[in-house]
Amino acid sequence: MSIQEEALASHRAWGGKLDILPKMDLATRHDLAIAYTPGVAEPCLAIAKDPESAYDLTMKANTVAVVTDGSAVLGLGNIGPLAALPVMEGKCALFKRFAGVNAFPICLDTQDVDEIVDACVKLAPVFGGINLEDISAPRCFEVEARLNDLLDIPVFHDDQHGTAIVVLSALINATKYVGKRPEEARVVMNGAGAAGIAIARLLHAYGFANIVMCDRWGILHSGQAQMNDAQRAMLDLTNAEDMSGTLADALVGADILVGVSAPGVVTPAMVHSMADDVIVFAMANPVPEIYPDEAKEAGAAVVGTGRSDFPNQINNVIAFPGIFKGALAARAERITDAMKLEAARALAGLVSDEELSADFVMPDPFDPRVAPTVARAVEACARDGR
Amino acid sequence: MSIQEEALASHRAWGGKLDILPKMDLATRHDLAIAYTPGVAEPCLAIAKDPESAYDLTMKANTVAVVTDGSAVLGLGNIGPLAALPVMEGKCALFKRFAGVNAFPICLDTQDVDEIVDACVKLAPVFGGINLEDISAPRCFEVEARLNDLLDIPVFHDDQHGTAIVVLSALINATKYVGKRPEEARVVMNGAGAAGIAIARLLHAYGFANIVMCDRWGILHSGQAQMNDAQRAMLDLTNAEDMSGTLADALVGADILVGVSAPGVVTPAMVHSMADDVIVFAMANPVPEIYPDEAKEAGAAVVGTGRSDFPNQINNVIAFPGIFKGALAARAERITDAMKLEAARALAGLVSDEELSADFVMPDPFDPRVAPTVARAVEACARDGR
Repeated sequence: MSIQEEALASHRAWGGKLDILPKMDLATRHDLAIAYTPGVAEPCLAIAKDPESAYDLTMKANTVAVVTDGSAVLGLGNIGPLAALPVMEGKCALFKRFAGVNAFPICLDTQDVDEIVDACVKLAPVFGGINLEDISAPRCFEVEARLNDLLDIPVFHDDQHGTAIVVLSALINATKYVGKRPEEARVVMNGAGAAGIAIARLLHAYGFANIVMCDRWGILHSGQAQMNDAQRAMLDLTNAEDMSGTLADALVGADILVGVSAPGVVTPAMVHSMADDVIVFAMANPVPEIYPDEAKEAGAAVVGTGRSDFPNQINNVIAFPGIFKGALAARAERITDAMKLEAARALAGLVSDEELSADFVMPDPFDPRVAPTVARAVEACARDGR
Repeated sequence: MSIQEEALASHRAWGGKLDILPKMDLATRHDLAIAYTPGVAEPCLAIAKDPESAYDLTMKANTVAVVTDGSAVLGLGNIGPLAALPVMEGKCALFKRFAGVNAFPICLDTQDVDEIVDACVKLAPVFGGINLEDISAPRCFEVEARLNDLLDIPVFHDDQHGTAIVVLSALINATKYVGKRPEEARVVMNGAGAAGIAIARLLHAYGFANIVMCDRWGILHSGQAQMNDAQRAMLDLTNAEDMSGTLADALVGADILVGVSAPGVVTPAMVHSMADDVIVFAMANPVPEIYPDEAKEAGAAVVGTGRSDFPNQINNVIAFPGIFKGALAARAERITDAMKLEAARALAGLVSDEELSADFVMPDPFDPRVAPTVARAVEACARDGR
């Protein structure tokens, strides 16, 4: 049975991947009187008097909404909110499995930015945080920014920032392995959508000083007319020399390629044109920009992909559960750049000098230290007000 | 420790009453590949092609939203959506405990009818049904009616219809016990809010032909200027003689009093003025319209209240879990009057002739037959297209 067949059969057998269970016994009238009426009136009154006490008396403190509009689901595109539900249920399952965080899928029957923002604001009372998921660019930028302004709970678009944190953590270790310094390495970021922009921003914030971004029409530069506002804003942080040209042009002499773009768009010749000891993260899924064996033959020292069947899988699951666990623990109102940077450093630190190799630049998703380590880093940052 | 103190301490210890758990193991990379990427793409594609398959492949088929705006919470009034959360979590816990139905609390940060309707429509993809809860009258009527028009999943305001079903089931048995016929018995319904109106409607649909409704300003009649539209519409079904006057006037010679009103508004003298062998359901909570011992001394044959510490507790928990279980099983698009009537008959039928007594007119909430029996009745009705 193929993965596809097995997945379909399993989903049919499960009939939904999540169960919502009471934490307490409800076996006697007394149990009902405590968990429901009349006893439940007491916590209600306490919260009416002091809204902050909802964090002690309800599920709010440990519950995240996983919100989508179904506009950019996996590599499947705009399949809509109902068809996106299996992904959101899976994401919620991972929140619980890896960080003990309760998460519930919210699949919104609208793709209008104002309506998405409005629905999330209306829903917010129950939740301690909002994980935005699979909302297409550039709408995702506005949804996230507006919600962070309107709400006092953290709102985090995982496709952007979760990916960026994991890529940065992998690059911290990969550059260490090949002996290159972030402030000197030339980075080519191929793909200037939600993930590409977030990765470039976080790499820049960490100290990667020389980044050039490309999209399907080539290098982002001042004379490029097809850029959206979010892409244009990236010119302040990237391509200081304002070079123009193709992806192939950008790669000549580069040290690092990060691809969140399309299958097979990187050729061995392009990798060959890069510097020595280069790092190639080819994350298009399921078919990467270039396969690991081809990239290595063309001279890449470290290769990562989005796939679990090659080494160095760039997998958000090592980031988002711990990010929310830490933010919830600290009652952070935002996920700041400082938290993202500390999370990436903490993840990178889980690979010891002895373990670090071309095929091992990131911790394993099942390493039980991962979520607690990320959570501690985020929580400490939040408590420092950073 | 009082119930109040114990409830507060328990809620603090629980830190939320619900846990959201994955149904499957997530212990290996293969497990992740099936429940999440890349396998999850298959059910997504199947649903994109055939939206109906969401009922087989996701949680939708067995998940209910418990939606409130916090405007009429228990007897506490308009305490807002956040302070209502402990009640909604409790309700969700009961859904799982008594019928195996997943339920999730949605506490909306708005009390505007248009905005409530809009938010529910946007949220609907994840859910197989919506249980409206603790939304004040008359807004609750409009919210429910509009949502039932807009959505293809059942929308059910439990404060109205759950209460009505349980009251009817109790009255079926109580009238049998005292030997009165529904078509002849005179019913006084005190309280003409959401619950009172729903109860009167369902009693009328069952065959109670002689109902007079009262509110705080007395009997609902054609010359009463303070009625809202929902109350005015009740004149078509009640008070055929168009009598006016006070609650005391209405009760003279009546056979049944159903109170969903206020503490202590019924005096022993009023009960004494009723017919012989009367039935008194005094459901104001926690202090009833009249206490059971006083009502019995004044001549009541059967007395029920909303409290668990007296016999005949009129408790919605014997209805709503099974109602939704049956509606979900049949994929019903509405909860029809026929389903409510069949549910009430089925509940009444769980009390055998041998068991039926003045103090036992309804099944125990913990009787394991309750939810399956209600569910079967609702499902059969739905499959008959009624």
